[in-house]
Amino acid sequence: MKALWIENRCLTYRNDIPEPQPAPSEALIRVRLAGICGTDLELLRGYYEFTGIPGHEFVGEVISLGEGEINEWSGRRVVGEINIPCGGCSMCLKGYPTHCEQRMVLGIRGHPGAFAEALVLPVRNLHRVPEGVSDLAAVFTEPLAAALEIQEQVKVRPSDQVLVVGAGRLGLLAAQTLALTGCKLQVAARHPLQQRILGDWGISWIEEGEIAERGFDIVVEASGSPDGFALARRAVRPRGTLVLKSTYHGELTANFSSLVVDEVTLVGSRCGPFEPALRLMKTGLIDPRPLIQGVYEFEDGQKAFEQAARPGGLKIILLPEANAR
Amino acid sequence: MKALWIENRCLTYRNDIPEPQPAPSEALIRVRLAGICGTDLELLRGYYEFTGIPGHEFVGEVISLGEGEINEWSGRRVVGEINIPCGGCSMCLKGYPTHCEQRMVLGIRGHPGAFAEALVLPVRNLHRVPEGVSDLAAVFTEPLAAALEIQEQVKVRPSDQVLVVGAGRLGLLAAQTLALTGCKLQVAARHPLQQRILGDWGISWIEEGEIAERGFDIVVEASGSPDGFALARRAVRPRGTLVLKSTYHGELTANFSSLVVDEVTLVGSRCGPFEPALRLMKTGLIDPRPLIQGVYEFEDGQKAFEQAARPGGLKIILLPEANAR
Repeated sequence: MKALWIENRCLTYRNDIPEPQPAPSEALIRVRLAGICGTDLELLRGYYEFTGIPGHEFVGEVISLGEGEINEWSGRRVVGEINIPCGGCSMCLKGYPTHCEQRMVLGIRGHPGAFAEALVLPVRNLHRVPEGVSDLAAVFTEPLAAALEIQEQVKVRPSDQVLVVGAGRLGLLAAQTLALTGCKLQVAARHPLQQRILGDWGISWIEEGEIAERGFDIVVEASGSPDGFALARRAVRPRGTLVLKSTYHGELTANFSSLVVDEVTLVGSRCGPFEPALRLMKTGLIDPRPLIQGVYEFEDGQKAFEQAARPGGLKIILLPEANAR
Repeated sequence: MKALWIENRCLTYRNDIPEPQPAPSEALIRVRLAGICGTDLELLRGYYEFTGIPGHEFVGEVISLGEGEINEWSGRRVVGEINIPCGGCSMCLKGYPTHCEQRMVLGIRGHPGAFAEALVLPVRNLHRVPEGVSDLAAVFTEPLAAALEIQEQVKVRPSDQVLVVGAGRLGLLAAQTLALTGCKLQVAARHPLQQRILGDWGISWIEEGEIAERGFDIVVEASGSPDGFALARRAVRPRGTLVLKSTYHGELTANFSSLVVDEVTLVGSRCGPFEPALRLMKTGLIDPRPLIQGVYEFEDGQKAFEQAARPGGLKIILLPEANAR
């Protein structure tokens, strides 16, 4: 089958990859659309050890099932959770499968990803896409779930003043979900396209220089840059909460004494719940499609990654050739 | 009056300090006992700009009141909250007076401290010491309140596995208060005296090398050292909580990506509630007196600070000469 392949920090298009076979308890899924995420760009930069097919944001269709799996999934349009836990370690047994110590992660660790014509995932990872949610929306389920993880971890009050630092792929989704709380939301947005999208959604954006120091009850750091972290740290009020929604390359230096003196709570936040994400798109309360900036076939994967990596770049969608015809 | 004085990183004993006069809304308090805290040692090391009388842990007696204050406080045995807020800034108006941006802090910032025969504090900072709580216990009210701030900020479940890193002055008090939750508590303790005190309290202590990586739901960092922070970080499980109970000299480097991937919550924690501290000492559920390692008169302040600064040093009490007679 056709797929994109990362090896030695190089991305190549290949059409010689054998189609995966579903093991018992797995489903074989034909990929309808896939999305490029910041983590994919980091895999290519070599921030994580990875060789294989990247990609973990997708919407697809179940085309076959491993031995013993019931047929109700057959032909279903699905999205899939990306963590594949072992089921037996202490984290799994405590009910934190996304933190399984031996976990495989679709397109990120030990499991071939979604930038391919087909992928396999355990059936228990799948969620049916409701009617009325288009493929172009459903492909955002995974990052939208990650945005919702903020509300899963932190109580956001309708009266809170909330700042999102960074209006990229994840920052814009976080802004959309935070706006649902009724909180007083501002988004630090640098790029005209980001500012326009926020404006269309009726969400206030501000320039970095205008941000009130110690002015926010909750600050979401979604820029992934040390400068963004420093900005977010300055913006959070004493006893406020700083949500870290991005990973950082390497180590980061911070003044921990000031975190203690100001009694700031720092919350690391990663993968989130799929069903609420699907519900919010079904009801139309969230429509992530304005984030789409380009659609490419796998053969143009290199161009797609280049566009996604541009400063202020938003969502790039990959389309298996079969669909494009 | 007699007092200890810090100036240019030097501690001196002086007997030429004018006794302070209570302004309206203030009380003049004769100090019965005072305690040396890690922050006092840091003031002397010059970590914070400070010239004047240090000391913020005390028990005393109200000897006079500013104009217009009602007499019910007169002669009362009291302890006092150390933050003196402005009452008018946004933090004060939001109900976070301990985070007032213009706050003075007893013996730490802009307000003469407790290592003196007398001090003044606003009457609203005072708490009566209940009968049955001795001076030697009451002098621990402020640090015991700081230990209780952990439970004020973080939910500690009886089934949680909790680790305290550092069994110094604050770590031991935190261990005592955390033990009240029924949680499975372990304390990383280096020094024989610390280990003996924990043993007497029936609290498990362990060597640093024995600490299970990612084994604890909640880790309290009370060592104030970068090594202690690194140890605490390794010990907290994914989705666990790391409470920072100590300040650190200078900046600290940490891997923030791993905080995000493991979805760890970091909570900075400082001053706490006085009334619960007094209640727990009154009922006898907490007795901090085993932490006392020495009692010195003000004239021997230098020796007192030296003993407090020794590795593994616990609580040193200062006694105004008038009491010592």
